[in-house]
Amino acid sequence: MSEENLKSMADLVAHSKHRGFIFQSSEIYGGLGSCWDMGPLGVELKNNIKQSWWKAMTYRDDVDGVDAAILMHPTVWKASGHVDNFTDPLVDCKVCKSRFRADNIDLSAPCSNCGAKDSFTEPRNFNLMFSTQMGPVEDTSAKVYLRPETAQGIFVNFPNVQTTMRRKLPFGIAQIGKAFRNEITPGNFIFRTREFEQMEMQYFIKPGTQAEAMEMWKELRWNWHLENGLRKERLQWKKHEQLAHYADAAFDIEYQFAHGWGEMEGIHSRTDFDLKQHQEYSKKNLNYVDQLDGNKKYLPYVLETSVGCDRCMLAVMSDAYRTEFPGDAEKERVVMRFKPSLAPIKAAIMPLMKKPDLEGPATALLRELQKDFKCEYDTAGSIGKRYRRQDEIGTPACITVDFDTLTDHSVTVRDRDTMVQERVALDKVKSYIKEKFSL
Amino acid sequence: MSEENLKSMADLVAHSKHRGFIFQSSEIYGGLGSCWDMGPLGVELKNNIKQSWWKAMTYRDDVDGVDAAILMHPTVWKASGHVDNFTDPLVDCKVCKSRFRADNIDLSAPCSNCGAKDSFTEPRNFNLMFSTQMGPVEDTSAKVYLRPETAQGIFVNFPNVQTTMRRKLPFGIAQIGKAFRNEITPGNFIFRTREFEQMEMQYFIKPGTQAEAMEMWKELRWNWHLENGLRKERLQWKKHEQLAHYADAAFDIEYQFAHGWGEMEGIHSRTDFDLKQHQEYSKKNLNYVDQLDGNKKYLPYVLETSVGCDRCMLAVMSDAYRTEFPGDAEKERVVMRFKPSLAPIKAAIMPLMKKPDLEGPATALLRELQKDFKCEYDTAGSIGKRYRRQDEIGTPACITVDFDTLTDHSVTVRDRDTMVQERVALDKVKSYIKEKFSL
Repeated sequence: MSEENLKSMADLVAHSKHRGFIFQSSEIYGGLGSCWDMGPLGVELKNNIKQSWWKAMTYRDDVDGVDAAILMHPTVWKASGHVDNFTDPLVDCKVCKSRFRADNIDLSAPCSNCGAKDSFTEPRNFNLMFSTQMGPVEDTSAKVYLRPETAQGIFVNFPNVQTTMRRKLPFGIAQIGKAFRNEITPGNFIFRTREFEQMEMQYFIKPGTQAEAMEMWKELRWNWHLENGLRKERLQWKKHEQLAHYADAAFDIEYQFAHGWGEMEGIHSRTDFDLKQHQEYSKKNLNYVDQLDGNKKYLPYVLETSVGCDRCMLAVMSDAYRTEFPGDAEKERVVMRFKPSLAPIKAAIMPLMKKPDLEGPATALLRELQKDFKCEYDTAGSIGKRYRRQDEIGTPACITVDFDTLTDHSVTVRDRDTMVQERVALDKVKSYIKEKFSL
Repeated sequence: MSEENLKSMADLVAHSKHRGFIFQSSEIYGGLGSCWDMGPLGVELKNNIKQSWWKAMTYRDDVDGVDAAILMHPTVWKASGHVDNFTDPLVDCKVCKSRFRADNIDLSAPCSNCGAKDSFTEPRNFNLMFSTQMGPVEDTSAKVYLRPETAQGIFVNFPNVQTTMRRKLPFGIAQIGKAFRNEITPGNFIFRTREFEQMEMQYFIKPGTQAEAMEMWKELRWNWHLENGLRKERLQWKKHEQLAHYADAAFDIEYQFAHGWGEMEGIHSRTDFDLKQHQEYSKKNLNYVDQLDGNKKYLPYVLETSVGCDRCMLAVMSDAYRTEFPGDAEKERVVMRFKPSLAPIKAAIMPLMKKPDLEGPATALLRELQKDFKCEYDTAGSIGKRYRRQDEIGTPACITVDFDTLTDHSVTVRDRDTMVQERVALDKVKSYIKEKFSL
């Protein structure tokens, strides 16, 4: 990473902490490796991103949602291939017992920790799934895994959803949920963490139609990121040249993070690999009966869209974070230029001074806006200082109640991006900001 | 459980499965002990309940949200007391190796599995936390737990939230998230499961003010359940006569489930027990500086409200589930009388027949409503049959597009509860159902 990029990542991490977006997990205990907690503003931002995805993906005619448990039957992970193949190769230094990823170091070199020569063991495979024991009896039959991906929760529910929702192909199943991977080298803030959240959709289609499904979802998913306000020049497609054994085509949407271009979403044509595996291991017939094609029976193919929710949040934050008018003592500001519908706080209500005359109408307005929006009420410091503080957390509207309000029953609404102020009647404020910011 | 109650629970479980609310986890593999997956309708219902709680609890002046990681520093659970005390006593039968909860069986009786006499081992304590290993090195320092409650994620974030959000007492921190307990005897559908979701809020207060905080939150939380549509006669308070060592007062809100009265929410005055423990174990100063009381330094007391999200969902479903006009072949129906804002599907759009003339305006209306609501489009079977189907999933509005629509540009909106039909102009449908059902 270049020095400038390192600084830009460090700035964002510091800003995230100081303004209540993201804290290190268990920070008072020195933190827990690569786990992060969403603070008051982070949880709002992340919920808004999830809500945006959920609406885009399931408020449609052809997609149902589900929310499968994190703990699944262990045979699911035999069938999916994770028990046998979801591994990284590791070596140990026999002298100092340090452990390294074999594919990340030069095995003929001395140990970087203790300097010993020829001290590495043979590489052995380390499975990246977290395992635990379910039930009071500690035998292998009770060994279960924390899911390393949400996708399998969709595949095993395919027959239940198809039947209960009376679905015909093509149709999709969408899910948002936590997944866990015991990564050897997590890092880059919330880009690669051991506990993370996925937003996945499997679209079940007739074999042979995967090219058109790929085109449709590539376009929809690309546009979704643009609609969230990400800058086009920071997005790019990456075509997989080497395909996983289950895929017949695969594209990633990459974002230009501070640490470099990184995968944010994968759109993969997975054929019938997963359903075939589950059919074999569960010994259940998972065939679809195609009433529109002479009751032909077959396993559907699957087109998958899979976004890292935390990566998406990191992209949204990186993209929104700006330092404007640098060096201008009067005007310099840090501003989070979130798309208003994603902003954690929609409006800050500010009585000019802490006086009952002003606080009366200010809190009445707050109560009215709070019915629909997360708002802040801010009385501390000069109005300019309060504007800066709201800019730093990306609040689209700052609403000032001043002494004129008492006679003209209007308030000043200041726009975060343009910094233009408009006078708006008290009883119109809600509809004004709803319309102006598409909330 | 009485025979009638058993039947009523069995009916609800069957209905939940057949209409896409709740499936057994990993069902094609025979299921996984006491884990459940939310189906297409279940995930919408549960999200609506979570959204209702989140708005009620955090769209306020005095409460911030957070979303802490499930994996926390292991010392958190030493400090909280879970490592040492979160246990059930178990005994084994030395003959058949069956395992029982010592406090649930008569230890002087023969083994209920194999009939052996005097075959039980001495009781030993079994910790209910799931544990796993983090990082590639398998030593005890890497042992972490799946959180058994969300509350500790709030306590350890108290200093970060208080500082970054510039909070003064009293203020609360709210969180929704998964927790895990390796229960010996899970059961009663989604009432007691090993993976479950909590909605918790810790309200930090000045010591001595816990009685008034208790009164305030008891009232707010009781009313929230009523606002969700639960019948008052199925709710009751239970005062804890025996208090946990950390509590100085505790009340539960119980619901009358099919299996009997059961805890849905706990409202507990926890004193400064948790912060004191974390201060001791983390060696960080967690004192609050009270600027309104001569900069006195002290640990805040905590008033906690903790709802089981799945239990709340079970209550909402149990309460909504009705069989009406039983025995009347014409009119008998199963109906889920959800509060409309909680209903999974808000409107079903039904062209009278599958003809382009009708499907044109019907899909145009669907597109318009889908911008705001989860909707269904239903063309299969008679209108009466379609009404029944929507009643069974609790859809508040059924909207029929018929041949008159082509000339009068109106549709028939049928109310789930009253079954009354009204003619509404196409361009007024959205505002009509928004207002009628408070959506």
